Amino acid sequence: MTAILPAEVLEKSATVLEQLKAAGLMVITAESCTGGLVAGALTAHAGSSAVVAGGFVTYSNAMKQAALGVSADMLAQWGAVSAQVAQAMAEGALAHAPDAGIAVSLTGVAGPDGGSEEKPVGLVWFGLQRAGKPPITQKKIFGGDRTEVRAQSVLHALKMIQDSI
Amino acid sequence: MTAILPAEVLEKSATVLEQLKAAGLMVITAESCTGGLVAGALTAHAGSSAVVAGGFVTYSNAMKQAALGVSADMLAQWGAVSAQVAQAMAEGALAHAPDAGIAVSLTGVAGPDGGSEEKPVGLVWFGLQRAGKPPITQKKIFGGDRTEVRAQSVLHALKMIQDSI
Repeated sequence: MTAILPAEVLEKSATVLEQLKAAGLMVITAESCTGGLVAGALTAHAGSSAVVAGGFVTYSNAMKQAALGVSADMLAQWGAVSAQVAQAMAEGALAHAPDAGIAVSLTGVAGPDGGSEEKPVGLVWFGLQRAGKPPITQKKIFGGDRTEVRAQSVLHALKMIQDSI
Repeated sequence: MTAILPAEVLEKSATVLEQLKAAGLMVITAESCTGGLVAGALTAHAGSSAVVAGGFVTYSNAMKQAALGVSADMLAQWGAVSAQVAQAMAEGALAHAPDAGIAVSLTGVAGPDGGSEEKPVGLVWFGLQRAGKPPITQKKIFGGDRTEVRAQSVLHALKMIQDSI
């Protein structure tokens, strides 16, 4: 096995790591549909421990509540794939990671099941929270199958970190 | 991008998912050196939400303490890469995931830096905890570079879940 993650993801995460190092910022992730791959990409490189605090993979709603403090009311009202929950995940991750200064989150419908007219397969909501700054949320609808939706989600989460440093 | 993770990892995680489904068990991970790739592999397949609660990527010691309740004393006495911390990570993950019945953990020296005579690059400690059962810890020393150590660690963590179902 020569590589775990594709070159495009590794190149992007290497760039983000250098920017985090230059900014003196530690990052925490809160991932649903990507299941840990954003954190996995960020830790692929030597020296990542200097700027990666870790991450929360909150795949179930129970984990979104237990690990990140997302409220049951919010999940019931807006659904797990929503701007509100993405923002709450990023805020919760930052609040629960004592050494982190920036949090990125994402929650989406990777498919092939789980899509609806209102929330189709490929819909992903992203959140970004820096300590003491206003929250950012972004919505994307990616094409392709489950693997492609997850890969594009990882790349976009990395891009959001880049854009906010 | 046709795949995010290598075929060998995806085949293994697909098998583990089927076994978890058959056993009616939800899994939670606690990862250090693999940075979320075990959870990433388990969530690569359609329908994984039925058996994957999520995971904790506790890359820093601060996160091992904050998210999993690993004690500062234990980290100071044994070091982050130890049987004691691997076991505490698995116990902590299970305790902090209300919907999970089995937890797998790992903490190791992926390299290229951070190795010592006592704890060389490639050393990885694994923990496994099922609700109401005795803890299991295992030690491996993998060859190869950072990517190979991480890939072998993912495969072994998946194997430990398989072996304990």
